[in-house]
Amino acid sequence: MSSVFDTQTAVNPADRGDHTYSAQLEGGWMVGGGLNGGYLLAVIGNALKASLPTKPDPLSISAYYLSATTEGPAQVDVKVLREGGSVATAAADLKQGDDTRITVLATYGDLDREAEDVRTTAVPFDLPPREQCVSNSMAPESLRKIAPLMERFEMLFHPDDIGWAVGEPNNSGELRAWFRLEDGREPDPIELLLVVDALPPVMFTYGQLGWAPTLELTAHVRAKPAPGWLRVRHATRNIAGGMFEEDCEVWDSAGRLVAQARQLARLPR
Amino acid sequence: MSSVFDTQTAVNPADRGDHTYSAQLEGGWMVGGGLNGGYLLAVIGNALKASLPTKPDPLSISAYYLSATTEGPAQVDVKVLREGGSVATAAADLKQGDDTRITVLATYGDLDREAEDVRTTAVPFDLPPREQCVSNSMAPESLRKIAPLMERFEMLFHPDDIGWAVGEPNNSGELRAWFRLEDGREPDPIELLLVVDALPPVMFTYGQLGWAPTLELTAHVRAKPAPGWLRVRHATRNIAGGMFEEDCEVWDSAGRLVAQARQLARLPR
Repeated sequence: MSSVFDTQTAVNPADRGDHTYSAQLEGGWMVGGGLNGGYLLAVIGNALKASLPTKPDPLSISAYYLSATTEGPAQVDVKVLREGGSVATAAADLKQGDDTRITVLATYGDLDREAEDVRTTAVPFDLPPREQCVSNSMAPESLRKIAPLMERFEMLFHPDDIGWAVGEPNNSGELRAWFRLEDGREPDPIELLLVVDALPPVMFTYGQLGWAPTLELTAHVRAKPAPGWLRVRHATRNIAGGMFEEDCEVWDSAGRLVAQARQLARLPR
Repeated sequence: MSSVFDTQTAVNPADRGDHTYSAQLEGGWMVGGGLNGGYLLAVIGNALKASLPTKPDPLSISAYYLSATTEGPAQVDVKVLREGGSVATAAADLKQGDDTRITVLATYGDLDREAEDVRTTAVPFDLPPREQCVSNSMAPESLRKIAPLMERFEMLFHPDDIGWAVGEPNNSGELRAWFRLEDGREPDPIELLLVVDALPPVMFTYGQLGWAPTLELTAHVRAKPAPGWLRVRHATRNIAGGMFEEDCEVWDSAGRLVAQARQLARLPR
């Protein structure tokens, strides 16, 4: 049985056979006035994957968000720029009608190559056991209404990080949570493209609860995630000039750092 | 009098008047078998700047490196994707003949907007006074010959970080240095595009002294740098799957974090 995520991020090759794909974008991934950027990155990630059959995994993907994407039909145009050797690079545009919503560059490869070569010095962040964390299912109905996205997955937040939800922001610039999809679908590299932009904006910890539009997001997928819950951390330390950076890391159940991402976003107004 | 950097990163509009620029790439920026990626990013940055006259500063730029660039003539094709409001987004390709060497997406804006809004929590890394640091001018003639790039600027390294230069790598994954251009040209946002990829690869600290080809590099310029020396830190903590990430931060003489960059590169072979 297909998961909601797989069904709703699927792309279909257009007749033309020139790396053009159609997608049906679902309103269940809305947050505020637009579709979630991570959801859209997964849709684009699937179109890139379909265009690069011998390079199945995103290694690096950079997305520039041009305008808000709405539910309904969309088209992804992929242009392969370089193939050969162990990696391939391609460009992709997500369009609705004549409007380009998101423009992307990406390098794909095979994460099973050299998968055993791990000399990381990174150590996981602190996150209490799941039963001590605070579930997004406790969010008030009013919030769930403007963010149907929240129904698509379970997030269990570090209890130190969610004072903002009850009007007591801790100004930490840090959000940590357990994460899995609503139906328990096991994570894979494409799902990680959603995960790096699924948590609330880290500015919420400063009590700035508005929408924080992403200008740019780059994700590096560093390994295939093991089955089970993921751990996600967002952090910012440079709020300036009306913008902030949001660094994201994703760890899998085997204790491996599987994705690193950074975005530049505008402060909520 | 123009600086070497300004002269050698200059672009000239082609006759066609359609955001196509010519550049003369100089061999003095070679390192190993190709031109330095940061130098090329500055050339592309100048072409983008020329195409976006009301948005003078790079805010975010993402470069995917497709093939090694050599000295000689090159062409930069810019395509403006979105303009209007306070930022503009464009794509750019650096080409030599029919070969695209580097493909780029970027968002430009005006760093003087909201320049006084600074609420950063980042603190500068440790770096001793310049007179206690180790100059790149002490590098052996053999190294300077394969890396003429090193003559283009002064780097004064943290003495703890350069054991590798005398066969005693400290396996720290961290390189810290003072930086300025050879002729003392004062830093600006375009120069920061060079600075984020100017130090030796951080894998040198593991004794891996070979060329580490960049797959992707994204830089966020967060403020106009104050005049004077810059401080640059490169660090890696996730070496895996034949690749490593290199995080870079650049601080100016006023103690402000002016650029943040991350690249994904292949391990030296």
